[in-house]
Amino acid sequence: MRLEHSHRTERFGAVRIHELQRVIELDSGDATGARGSGIVSHDAIRAIEREMVIVIPCMNETRRVIEGVLSGIPHDCLIVLVSNSDRHPVDRFEIEAQTVEQFCQSAERPAITIHQRDPGLAAALKAAGMPELVGDDGMVRAGKGEAMLIGMAVAAMTGRAYIGYVDADNYVPGAVHEYVKVYAAGLHLAANPYAMVRISWHSKPKLRDGRLFFSRRGRSSEITNQFLNRLVAEYSGFGTEVIATGNAGEHALSLDLGLRMRLAGGFAVEPFEYVDLFEQFGGVLPASYPEVMTSSVPVLQIETRNPHFHDNKGEDHVQGMRMQALNVLYHSPVSLPAVREAILDFMVAQGALAPGEEPPRERIYPPVGSLDFDLFFDTLTAEANSFRQVGTGPAVERPSPRGRTPETASPA
Amino acid sequence: MRLEHSHRTERFGAVRIHELQRVIELDSGDATGARGSGIVSHDAIRAIEREMVIVIPCMNETRRVIEGVLSGIPHDCLIVLVSNSDRHPVDRFEIEAQTVEQFCQSAERPAITIHQRDPGLAAALKAAGMPELVGDDGMVRAGKGEAMLIGMAVAAMTGRAYIGYVDADNYVPGAVHEYVKVYAAGLHLAANPYAMVRISWHSKPKLRDGRLFFSRRGRSSEITNQFLNRLVAEYSGFGTEVIATGNAGEHALSLDLGLRMRLAGGFAVEPFEYVDLFEQFGGVLPASYPEVMTSSVPVLQIETRNPHFHDNKGEDHVQGMRMQALNVLYHSPVSLPAVREAILDFMVAQGALAPGEEPPRERIYPPVGSLDFDLFFDTLTAEANSFRQVGTGPAVERPSPRGRTPETASPA
Repeated sequence: MRLEHSHRTERFGAVRIHELQRVIELDSGDATGARGSGIVSHDAIRAIEREMVIVIPCMNETRRVIEGVLSGIPHDCLIVLVSNSDRHPVDRFEIEAQTVEQFCQSAERPAITIHQRDPGLAAALKAAGMPELVGDDGMVRAGKGEAMLIGMAVAAMTGRAYIGYVDADNYVPGAVHEYVKVYAAGLHLAANPYAMVRISWHSKPKLRDGRLFFSRRGRSSEITNQFLNRLVAEYSGFGTEVIATGNAGEHALSLDLGLRMRLAGGFAVEPFEYVDLFEQFGGVLPASYPEVMTSSVPVLQIETRNPHFHDNKGEDHVQGMRMQALNVLYHSPVSLPAVREAILDFMVAQGALAPGEEPPRERIYPPVGSLDFDLFFDTLTAEANSFRQVGTGPAVERPSPRGRTPETASPA
Repeated sequence: MRLEHSHRTERFGAVRIHELQRVIELDSGDATGARGSGIVSHDAIRAIEREMVIVIPCMNETRRVIEGVLSGIPHDCLIVLVSNSDRHPVDRFEIEAQTVEQFCQSAERPAITIHQRDPGLAAALKAAGMPELVGDDGMVRAGKGEAMLIGMAVAAMTGRAYIGYVDADNYVPGAVHEYVKVYAAGLHLAANPYAMVRISWHSKPKLRDGRLFFSRRGRSSEITNQFLNRLVAEYSGFGTEVIATGNAGEHALSLDLGLRMRLAGGFAVEPFEYVDLFEQFGGVLPASYPEVMTSSVPVLQIETRNPHFHDNKGEDHVQGMRMQALNVLYHSPVSLPAVREAILDFMVAQGALAPGEEPPRERIYPPVGSLDFDLFFDTLTAEANSFRQVGTGPAVERPSPRGRTPETASPA
């Protein structure tokens, strides 16, 4: 794969945000180049893929669409499907699990499935020390952030080094394929134990007046990015547009970083990743993990070639995403007063908030690395019926060292 | 890449048509398997790509779309853009040529451009012995078959062994990428100097009542495939549905085969490839190339994972394609009377033919291998201003041995 060279970065403490880089070629073949030139060889990509878990949060997608997504994930990556699909009147999770199993049988590869609302999963998380994730009904809360957290916890047990997220509602297997290649290429180029790669899709096809229109930016992303950039600019004193991936559903990171991050619930999860990096490694608040501060945390942002072609979830969904992003921004201790005020003004103007009200707080969970993975694994295997290892080859045997609670994993 | 194993083939003389195989995984990573299992390793694919020319017939596509298509073509393949775009009032070919050049500069690879209506190209084809391609206006005739023939003539001069076609009007770079990987995987699996790979796309997104519908088959393909299968079945005495790629715009073949084939003009080109294989290597008529008959001619048909997502050319285009396919089928000496009658009945029922009329004949050109490539190259370089080698690295220097007229290249 060949990426545009990224010249500029914006620093926020140890966090180094790279400006958006485009994909030039999906496959750079025999082309060679020094690190930094943007060419990532097949072997370098493969080396990362062998260490990567791909988590697919899934809610009520059709068999066909899921099968397409699976087919796009390079063979050496380990697939983890985290489903929050309906189990009644039709058990859609069982259909999904069968789809994964059949795919894995033809492709001779392993995969893991789990259902977000499996009582055994809630029990395992409680036992392992994260009761915050469990709601009043005794189950893990619904929400995308929660699904991603579960995926990360499972990924941590596999002993692999990287985790990438791919949404299940993608009509283009080739786009999924590109996402994973971009993750691997970016993580290779970052060359850092604490690294994140976030994707900005090239365009999003939409129906407009009966024809297709390729929109460049999502409705929600523009607002999220604008306020994230404002947050950064308030510190540097220079306006910036460096952040282009505030809402990136498609992103990957090293588990060394991931296990130290706090994830937010629901749709706040993606923008909160930036906020959490700023809070923990921005140098404004006391650092939670001093060893990360002595390194740096590169965030690569990469614009893919493929259009992001998925089902239209409607306007409510977008408005919800936008507001959850702003809620976490507003409440972050790194947001300076001018940003907080701008957020309030915007929310009031949008009718999302009455004048004088405060935005609601989103749930913020402790780092996944604080889990007791031995207990998590034991309870999961004993009690969670939806936790299944399918296909060929073992995916998780016992908690790996990576999965154990890091000694430094207890932030204040 | 991992393909479904293909169990069944249908023979027509030396032509061995494989039933449709699906792509299981776009990237099979470290998975290994014996030839025949459907796994094609990265190295095997790469070896074919290094020997492959990708020809992109192009007519009035936007810069953006072309750039996306280029980005999907693996680095080691050589790109040849054959344009029939408008040159007035805006010179769209110049814009396309610039797009190719800029892409090749960032990707550090070579490419070739040529315009179908360049008088220098017509002169070169005349000089090289194919005046049939030139119309009364002194230029190469417009038409897709003609563009493909030009692409093949240029490809033959590069010394590479394979040629693949990719339409320029594709919105999904990842689909283009998959096509080329499928070509390489199929040509590797065919393991034969005379081989063809034809693609059946998974689905085609269409607008229907303001929402997207993923249609499985093209309107034109169904009819073409039905009559091609009928043609085969009349010989075997067994009904068959083996042919699923009669109109495949996306296909690849060895130049050893391609240089011996006669191509048809316009939209008849793709279905006529089957007809020509049957005529030359079907064992019904005297074989034009006895050395091919002693080998065999595998035709692999592969269903890709990606949707085929392109601009809607409207109903006229489809009706035209369908009828051109039937015209060549009707007039082929291998079509038995029952097939010819069924075609007539269908065309009359469609209102495409008055009762008692004969379908028109399509243009059929001599094999590209019959060209005098030395003269072709010299005239092209001297007179065809649109024949340009751009980017990094030479693409064509002098006609290669492959480009020279094969000794056996003079069919009756």
